[in-house]
Amino acid sequence: MARVSQAHLDARRRQILDAAALCFARNGFHATSMQDVLKEADLSAGAVYRYFSGKEELIAAIVSEVLGEVRAAFEAAARQSPPPSPDQLVVTVLSRTLALRESLTLDGAPAFPRLVVQVWSEVPRNDELAAVLREGYGSVRAAWGRIVEAYQEAGTMRSDIPPDHVARTMIAAVLGFIAQQSLFGPAPVEILRDGLRALMSISDAESQA
Amino acid sequence: MARVSQAHLDARRRQILDAAALCFARNGFHATSMQDVLKEADLSAGAVYRYFSGKEELIAAIVSEVLGEVRAAFEAAARQSPPPSPDQLVVTVLSRTLALRESLTLDGAPAFPRLVVQVWSEVPRNDELAAVLREGYGSVRAAWGRIVEAYQEAGTMRSDIPPDHVARTMIAAVLGFIAQQSLFGPAPVEILRDGLRALMSISDAESQA
Repeated sequence: MARVSQAHLDARRRQILDAAALCFARNGFHATSMQDVLKEADLSAGAVYRYFSGKEELIAAIVSEVLGEVRAAFEAAARQSPPPSPDQLVVTVLSRTLALRESLTLDGAPAFPRLVVQVWSEVPRNDELAAVLREGYGSVRAAWGRIVEAYQEAGTMRSDIPPDHVARTMIAAVLGFIAQQSLFGPAPVEILRDGLRALMSISDAESQA
Repeated sequence: MARVSQAHLDARRRQILDAAALCFARNGFHATSMQDVLKEADLSAGAVYRYFSGKEELIAAIVSEVLGEVRAAFEAAARQSPPPSPDQLVVTVLSRTLALRESLTLDGAPAFPRLVVQVWSEVPRNDELAAVLREGYGSVRAAWGRIVEAYQEAGTMRSDIPPDHVARTMIAAVLGFIAQQSLFGPAPVEILRDGLRALMSISDAESQA
């Protein structure tokens, strides 16, 4: 067998993952066959099965990759002192995640938000996918929690609220923003940044009372 | 034909809608047949088709009902002077929406969050559903926007951010919180309330700079 470079292997793996991501975003995991993925990737079954045993492995690899990037971005942010403000952090991580998948489009719109919603809808039926997602969500939530602790220690955020509640709320805002894009089309991340900034400007005297 | 009361008709309609909601939450719209809905409702085809022509009408009715409730809750809030703070408003509307569907459960957990995600995943394939959702989202977004204007007029929120951006961000937080429940199980709405309160307590001096 001819020797192939690591770069070639990586590029081929990328090509397969991108093809699968497009198929899943378009029709959902359930309605996508490995045949659809081969066709989309323009590769033979032999070429694809050398990398992935089937749809389960493909979707797990796609989800792990995204979660790994997001976690790394949060861990980097948590090492900064002081950490970036929530609005800045959300925009940085979300923009980067969307930009990495800009080339994946469906009907002229980014495919990533649709992929995310299709993955969510598959979770109740797929224990392995649920486990991958739960683990990644746990890591991101923990990393966000550490950033919230830093805000509280620095005195820029009230300290009587459990950091995990803030972490879940910030993650909710991002997930919901992605859901909106899937449902109603692309929107600049600056909308979310602005909305968070406006919330940060509210006097919460009343709700503390 | 025997005369039937409006109360009976309403109860029958409710029974069918709840059965359909459970089926869609469990298996998704695509994999649910009308036969599944009849079985879940424990009714004959004749009894069901008298109310709904098929799955399309069922899902549109379910989604319209939820969106109608949410819109009404926001419109009521917008009439209060001053309007409730964002954290209070979110908790009131979300608790009420979840409470109305408390009796719908799957594997011992509320079915509503799973239903929501299944509806989202169906939208790209279903133009009628997409139109219902887009219209309802537009109304809720407009109602939220009016509340944000009231905050800005009262001077409790910075006024240099478009109200619609804040509206979209608040809706994102709620949708993402529902998605989290679908993925990782039930969570009290107080988590989201706390997270919003913590955000409201941040000094945004830096991000304004």
